[in-house]
Amino acid sequence: MPETQGKPIECLAAIAWEPCKPLDVTTVIVDPPQKGEVRVRIVATALCHTDAYTLGGKDPEGLFPCILGHEAAGVVESVGEGVTSVEKGDHVIPCYMAFCGECSMCTSGKTNLCGSVRAWTGRGVMRGDDKPRFTHKESGKKIFHFMGTSTFSEYTVLHEESVANVDKAAPLDKICLLGCGVTTGIGAVTNTAKVEKGATAAVFGLGTIGLACVDALATVGASRIIAVDTDPGKHARAKEWGATDVINPKDFDKPIQEVITEMTNQDGVGGVDYSFEAIGNVGVMRAALECCHKGWGQCVIIGVAAAGQEISTRPFQLVTGRVWRGTAFGGFKSREDVPKLVKDYMGGKFRVDEYITHTMKLTDINTCFDLLHAGKCLRCVMIAD
Amino acid sequence: MPETQGKPIECLAAIAWEPCKPLDVTTVIVDPPQKGEVRVRIVATALCHTDAYTLGGKDPEGLFPCILGHEAAGVVESVGEGVTSVEKGDHVIPCYMAFCGECSMCTSGKTNLCGSVRAWTGRGVMRGDDKPRFTHKESGKKIFHFMGTSTFSEYTVLHEESVANVDKAAPLDKICLLGCGVTTGIGAVTNTAKVEKGATAAVFGLGTIGLACVDALATVGASRIIAVDTDPGKHARAKEWGATDVINPKDFDKPIQEVITEMTNQDGVGGVDYSFEAIGNVGVMRAALECCHKGWGQCVIIGVAAAGQEISTRPFQLVTGRVWRGTAFGGFKSREDVPKLVKDYMGGKFRVDEYITHTMKLTDINTCFDLLHAGKCLRCVMIAD
Repeated sequence: MPETQGKPIECLAAIAWEPCKPLDVTTVIVDPPQKGEVRVRIVATALCHTDAYTLGGKDPEGLFPCILGHEAAGVVESVGEGVTSVEKGDHVIPCYMAFCGECSMCTSGKTNLCGSVRAWTGRGVMRGDDKPRFTHKESGKKIFHFMGTSTFSEYTVLHEESVANVDKAAPLDKICLLGCGVTTGIGAVTNTAKVEKGATAAVFGLGTIGLACVDALATVGASRIIAVDTDPGKHARAKEWGATDVINPKDFDKPIQEVITEMTNQDGVGGVDYSFEAIGNVGVMRAALECCHKGWGQCVIIGVAAAGQEISTRPFQLVTGRVWRGTAFGGFKSREDVPKLVKDYMGGKFRVDEYITHTMKLTDINTCFDLLHAGKCLRCVMIAD
Repeated sequence: MPETQGKPIECLAAIAWEPCKPLDVTTVIVDPPQKGEVRVRIVATALCHTDAYTLGGKDPEGLFPCILGHEAAGVVESVGEGVTSVEKGDHVIPCYMAFCGECSMCTSGKTNLCGSVRAWTGRGVMRGDDKPRFTHKESGKKIFHFMGTSTFSEYTVLHEESVANVDKAAPLDKICLLGCGVTTGIGAVTNTAKVEKGATAAVFGLGTIGLACVDALATVGASRIIAVDTDPGKHARAKEWGATDVINPKDFDKPIQEVITEMTNQDGVGGVDYSFEAIGNVGVMRAALECCHKGWGQCVIIGVAAAGQEISTRPFQLVTGRVWRGTAFGGFKSREDVPKLVKDYMGGKFRVDEYITHTMKLTDINTCFDLLHAGKCLRCVMIAD
């Protein structure tokens, strides 16, 4: 293979030209990384609901044309000037949640949100020159980045702040899932809610994130794990993952929050200690809050709702002690924590491989979207040749 | 004065016969306390917005006819069988938030809500026999209790769980305010939000509760205390209490949450660490959440909204790290903590006397309501003869 450092690379990428249209797998030119940037060969990338959400036109920040994809793993091809945390050949996980360790957010010690590159990644460009690094070969058109990752490409360019350097011994085609879904579910339980042994919990939505919540809840020793999904096809897996109860809202004539409150009634007061919404449905977010125990129950919103949608409840729910919060990337500080999660995965501390229901190629990406929309996959992983 | 123990007492009380009508100050018969009950001579009772809220027909739990009032202080006249925590002659503060120390809520260590008597106080009756202890003398009609306190009466009957035994040296005509408003504001800051030195905060609504928040924020050393009220007449007092900025939403063309976010902008990210809603307006509750700093800002709802009203926001507000919570009685465990608050008051640790703008008699109660509705008082305290 010829030396590519400092040169543009021609490779395949899946371009989203406009919302709601199939992706176009075509040749792009990927510029060399500039100062503070890293060019990565993507070895494995999975499809997550957030990609479908943006492609579906529901993301108010969605920019087109763009290259989607944010749950991946790869190998550093080359680095730009000043990059010190990774070098050519390192195995990395692109992180849509950057971590610089220096901004007011990172140094606050109170959040995993980082302000370093968000102003540029939100606009689909790189910080150095306010431009993207992707060009469509045939038309010469510039193609926007997505979430600062754009992993639906054989090569991508990232800000150094968005690159987690991980153990080379870990299988890239598995740990790619730590770039979003699995990490988010685990962190929602352990970092955001800080669920303690013996606590009771409800998990709404049994996709990858919801199942990762169930997995983490079982690991911390939750005494009751009530898994909720309208698709009975997802129930057996939740049981296997550790759910103590699995319920389908369609089986009841009353709101699911009432069902859960009754299921957990003790001394005339019911409700779970913690609930997790892993769907992105504002009605379910309300149910998730209202099924919490008064006095201390906490609801963690993980799912991303469509643009313009709002959550609502009676304020009495909060005045009587319930807490409504949310989580992004499970509260993990990406560059610091993702390498540790990779080690934990290798130590068998949580499930990862089990979420991969399909393995394909980048050229199959539209099939992956079809499977996702049909609810027929957990994670489709596309592996590079 | 003749011995009254074990006998009914005839006295004056202000009966709310129906919503939105002036109270009727008339003679009632107050039954002797039964097992586990305490009869108290009310020496001082203040008027709080919650009384006006229920009288206005906005409380879905409101029962009529009833005797309102829940912010008071008095002297124990007699106790029923089995009562051990207070005796005749003790000075007490009636607590609408009971504390038994034994129920699953009290023993959880996670909330100040108590499940011991709520099922009865919510229905305006006593636990012993499911009946009220008040009878209207003229008509013989039974009159419901309110919030388990009914302090707009010269005598009232309380569950032992609702009676805080306080230092006899404390002035009853002042410490009556510790039965609700002042305590709630202080606790919202110190117990619920646990505001730390140097933090930034916004307080919406500059009545007694909001001012008590400002007072507590100044005491813990908040670096910025932004007080918000549409009534400029309340601004000077907030400054005196320790607010660093006082703003009127009517002075701006944009939403107040944007104004506050801009006022607190640092490194391109604005918002306060903590906000407090002390009005009961659901639109303001939204503003209070949305003016919080992303990543960690917490909004505490203190105000009580009218029945059926709902709060709403985009879930993105929570996913990006803001927390929406509420407080009841400021998170204080009433019987345990109110006596300590009385000691703190005597030690000059916070303002109490300063909220009393009017001193009257129970027979003036409708004038008190008029002053409250006109926004012309902070606290009207009615003193017994």
